[in-house]
Amino acid sequence: MSLHPAVAAVRHGVRRALADVDPGRTVVVACSGGPDSTALLAATVFEARKGGQHVIGATVDHGLQDGSDARAAAVVAQMAALGADETLSARVHVDGAGLGPEAAARRARYAVLEQVAERFDAAAVLLGHTRDDQAETVLLGLTRGSGGRSLAGMRRSYDRFVRPLLDVDRADTVAACLVEGLETWDDPHNADPAYTRVRVRRTVLPLLEEQLGPGVAATLARTADQLRADMDLLDDLADAAYAELREPDGALPATGLAARPEPVRRRVLRLAALAAGAPGSELFHEHVVAMDSLVTDWHGQRWIDLPGHLRCSRADGRLRIDRVAT
Amino acid sequence: MSLHPAVAAVRHGVRRALADVDPGRTVVVACSGGPDSTALLAATVFEARKGGQHVIGATVDHGLQDGSDARAAAVVAQMAALGADETLSARVHVDGAGLGPEAAARRARYAVLEQVAERFDAAAVLLGHTRDDQAETVLLGLTRGSGGRSLAGMRRSYDRFVRPLLDVDRADTVAACLVEGLETWDDPHNADPAYTRVRVRRTVLPLLEEQLGPGVAATLARTADQLRADMDLLDDLADAAYAELREPDGALPATGLAARPEPVRRRVLRLAALAAGAPGSELFHEHVVAMDSLVTDWHGQRWIDLPGHLRCSRADGRLRIDRVAT
Repeated sequence: MSLHPAVAAVRHGVRRALADVDPGRTVVVACSGGPDSTALLAATVFEARKGGQHVIGATVDHGLQDGSDARAAAVVAQMAALGADETLSARVHVDGAGLGPEAAARRARYAVLEQVAERFDAAAVLLGHTRDDQAETVLLGLTRGSGGRSLAGMRRSYDRFVRPLLDVDRADTVAACLVEGLETWDDPHNADPAYTRVRVRRTVLPLLEEQLGPGVAATLARTADQLRADMDLLDDLADAAYAELREPDGALPATGLAARPEPVRRRVLRLAALAAGAPGSELFHEHVVAMDSLVTDWHGQRWIDLPGHLRCSRADGRLRIDRVAT
Repeated sequence: MSLHPAVAAVRHGVRRALADVDPGRTVVVACSGGPDSTALLAATVFEARKGGQHVIGATVDHGLQDGSDARAAAVVAQMAALGADETLSARVHVDGAGLGPEAAARRARYAVLEQVAERFDAAAVLLGHTRDDQAETVLLGLTRGSGGRSLAGMRRSYDRFVRPLLDVDRADTVAACLVEGLETWDDPHNADPAYTRVRVRRTVLPLLEEQLGPGVAATLARTADQLRADMDLLDDLADAAYAELREPDGALPATGLAARPEPVRRRVLRLAALAAGAPGSELFHEHVVAMDSLVTDWHGQRWIDLPGHLRCSRADGRLRIDRVAT
């Protein structure tokens, strides 16, 4: 029997990700029991047998629903049945301080996966995000309006985390599980329209496909790939400019700033505000534009208030960011 | 009676646009008779009286609907009644060769407005695009998937064309017309769901506002502003790199290319393909990525076929683009 194209697509993504992992090394596969991560684990077990890597299946129990411990145990049993060399379940405590519930759960989940990777000296932690997840992330970014970075989606890899399925459609992970007879579990959160992401998945993306033509998800993912490379370069240019311009006391010379192109200059001002302690989640484009007006439209105006009890002011041709005495 | 905020918003946009136009100079206002451009013309007449500029109202008859000549005559009469110093109607012939009907009409319209501006030595041609038009343009760009530029929307100005209302909501132009008792005409094309833009306006944007929260249009427009600055800088970097790398016969050294960051390198390759005669509308990201593989993944592969009967090949450490003998 020939290989089903959906299984081939998932394995192809995993094969490319494992190409960088030496034989004998360990990879962790994060598995929720849903179709994406179940297909990912099955493909990783298959490919790692050829590549000689050691596969740890890890599931995270967020403890947010009744019976989540039993659910985690069931995922562990299935991961073992799928052929993972080791399995583990990690219970996390989701602390939502300053974050929405989804972001808080994500932060807790990534932190524990990072710990697991550390403990097992894993070369990589594989995550099951698909092209559809990427498209949803781009659309969610549209609502933030914080420029290209908010549309640049998820990285293919960062630190130890790798997303082998970003070029694979969700329909293919579902089909791969069906073809291989793998039972999967749908997290009821994935159907709860209280979550913006669920509304994007169930309502917004289907409507875009209907009104703008099929292939919108793939198009969004492709745009995100290009934007990510663009944004990384602009961030690199800004890092270099900031390092060059920054004076020992943290001040920035106005003429040096003015000589930089706007996208670099504004990124440098954002970096300076973050370095001074402005919380990233509260530092908006408007703040950066206001700081920029001290450079490009200087007429002796007052200071600019920034989040984190900070003030940006210009004196003697230099921009300073100071904490307000409270 | 105090000034209605919608009228104030439209006038504010126009005032900023006219600030750069000397007294005695001429501005052309493109007016279709719809609420956006009618509000634009009324505000321009008002502001130009203070600024001392000469206002020409120009309407374009695309000749695509029965009675379009009578319609153009009615718009001319209204532009005169609104106080334009001169009015004119220009009939264009829409030739759709190689373009969709919307793009063909746009090209014809801009060409005739450019001629009008030339003839009257106008300092600016004002166009009535609003923030909502900008949001629609960004969403239409999502379906193209050609990276950040496709999401960067319309420019605030280029050559003589200026868009003073990009920060003004369409609802404000409608309200401004109502408040000032101006009759407007809705082009039936604006309600024809055969046009993708109409579906974006009537179906997609309202659904996004409903599902993702209000303010999506403003957010899209803000993202476009930032992306445009980012993309302009990356294009400038690519122009400079292309000028530096390009050898007298048009070839590009592979090592020089390889030393550039990916976003710059790929833009340089695109510039080289365009310079060799590849038609921009057929030159896709896939072509550029394939050319790039001759730089970053060179293993003696064959040439890359490009649109316009071109081939990109690598020999003696140089990339060349040649026309295929036909």
